[in-house]
Amino acid sequence: MRAIAGTDQLSVVTLPDPEPGPHEVVIDVVAAGVNRADLLQRKGLYPPPPGAVDTLGLEVSGRIAALGEHVSGWKVGDEVCALLAGGGYAEKVAVPAVQVLPKPTAVDLVSAAALPEVACTVASNVFDAGHLASGELLLIHGGSSGIGTHAIQVAHAIGARVAVTARTAQKLDRCRELGAEVLINYADDDFVDIIRECGGADVILDIMGAKYLEQNVRALNTGGRLVIIGMQGGTKAELSIAALMTKRASVIGTTLRSRPVTGSNSKAEVVATTRRITWPLLDSGEVLPIVDSTFGLADAEAAHARLDSGDAIGKILLTVN
Amino acid sequence: MRAIAGTDQLSVVTLPDPEPGPHEVVIDVVAAGVNRADLLQRKGLYPPPPGAVDTLGLEVSGRIAALGEHVSGWKVGDEVCALLAGGGYAEKVAVPAVQVLPKPTAVDLVSAAALPEVACTVASNVFDAGHLASGELLLIHGGSSGIGTHAIQVAHAIGARVAVTARTAQKLDRCRELGAEVLINYADDDFVDIIRECGGADVILDIMGAKYLEQNVRALNTGGRLVIIGMQGGTKAELSIAALMTKRASVIGTTLRSRPVTGSNSKAEVVATTRRITWPLLDSGEVLPIVDSTFGLADAEAAHARLDSGDAIGKILLTVN
Repeated sequence: MRAIAGTDQLSVVTLPDPEPGPHEVVIDVVAAGVNRADLLQRKGLYPPPPGAVDTLGLEVSGRIAALGEHVSGWKVGDEVCALLAGGGYAEKVAVPAVQVLPKPTAVDLVSAAALPEVACTVASNVFDAGHLASGELLLIHGGSSGIGTHAIQVAHAIGARVAVTARTAQKLDRCRELGAEVLINYADDDFVDIIRECGGADVILDIMGAKYLEQNVRALNTGGRLVIIGMQGGTKAELSIAALMTKRASVIGTTLRSRPVTGSNSKAEVVATTRRITWPLLDSGEVLPIVDSTFGLADAEAAHARLDSGDAIGKILLTVN
Repeated sequence: MRAIAGTDQLSVVTLPDPEPGPHEVVIDVVAAGVNRADLLQRKGLYPPPPGAVDTLGLEVSGRIAALGEHVSGWKVGDEVCALLAGGGYAEKVAVPAVQVLPKPTAVDLVSAAALPEVACTVASNVFDAGHLASGELLLIHGGSSGIGTHAIQVAHAIGARVAVTARTAQKLDRCRELGAEVLINYADDDFVDIIRECGGADVILDIMGAKYLEQNVRALNTGGRLVIIGMQGGTKAELSIAALMTKRASVIGTTLRSRPVTGSNSKAEVVATTRRITWPLLDSGEVLPIVDSTFGLADAEAAHARLDSGDAIGKILLTVN
């Protein structure tokens, strides 16, 4: 099969077709999602977990091509999408069956590749860890990102209020169309002031890490939950424990990729949670995949450049077959 | 009625008897618990919440003397203990009925004054916020404190493993008798090394704040929860967000006293949670109040000196009537 290899320069190579393990399925890939983690992995900053293939690609859509002997609930030909530990930039990929999700009714098969990472990230962080409830205020940093554009829709659908930060008026307009009601251009305004005027954030979904830690804690409401899923602004910062205690607030750090496949706090659990929380909203069309652009598999380099530019709104996909 | 007033020097004064508000009861106080917060309040470091009396005392036991017009579920003469916003160092105190708990069957009425603060603190932090489960490892800093001696017993009773830090062999012996199995003299040993050899802590109940933040995060297991309820070691420290994310761990700051009386995350909720989790264990005698010493109301100054010495094991009480 064709796959993308390389670190300095991404190029098409030929690799052996994967065989399914006893609890795995093999998917004929139709499209693969491009993630910021892929950019980090190329630079050696985000190594794959032990045992994972070192080909890039954390999510795909496609059709089931083969089933391991212990797999039930799926059949060859099923249209699906899947969360991967790696290997998605390829014509075929083997994945534990517990990481596979059905293509939502209202979504086309290519666009379904835009869903696994964002849906699992938002369900596990905003809802499972952050316990966002109807009527609460969710602040999303980077509202126009893949995760942001999905989180806005899901939070809006369950009756939460949504605030976003972004750096251009065009991005903020798109966030508003998707359901955000508090739009903060971080180049012009202090998000802490604006969020506090809104009564404080009950949940913050943060990708900046150190750079925003102090401001995020100040922006939290009593009982607020700061969920950090990225460290684009650094890895260490001073925490005001006094502020955290006074607000009875939490700082939660999480990653999706390092979770075990099964068991407690596993990918299997996250996928099951996501299917329960988010899939009904996707099946009904209430939440849509937001695709910025699609590139052919051979143009993976251009797709990475697009993501790295920071100009994308929503997800970038590679079409494979 | 007699009550204790003063900041520099505690002394007995005469105050008007309290009347119950519509949702309150008045308790004839039998005994009052002494808390570290009382020491801080005297120094002006822990002001009472708005609307609370400024007399010291966050918990009492006694008999119900009068009921507000909207109170149901209690009658005059009931033996109870109660969580207060203040005013416990007195012959009578008015308290919202939702903050009252029945005296447990297996506990005498004086010793019941040792329960409200520790039981509510442990139930709300270790169980409600920290989600400690059977088979998990709980690390308690200051295992011989009032909170520590209670937390050891409750965690042990639900099948969790307990590790404690303390600074003398005598204190650690007492912790072992109560159910702790990992005993760490912090004067001699690095708790991080020992806890990591035990597989890491699933929940840490911390009273040190800044001083232990970095070590506590290192001692956490994957999915671990650090619950900070005190800042004896400072209010600000550097947080490794990378470590938190890698472990998918949480830092939770909480206080009990600043919670509203009713509603979401209120004292009423905490008391209800405590009654559900802890009261059956107290009724059966599986968990006992641990009383270090009792002093007469007029000897409040000596009781404070005993707590301030750091030598107490368990709770210090004032007997009132």
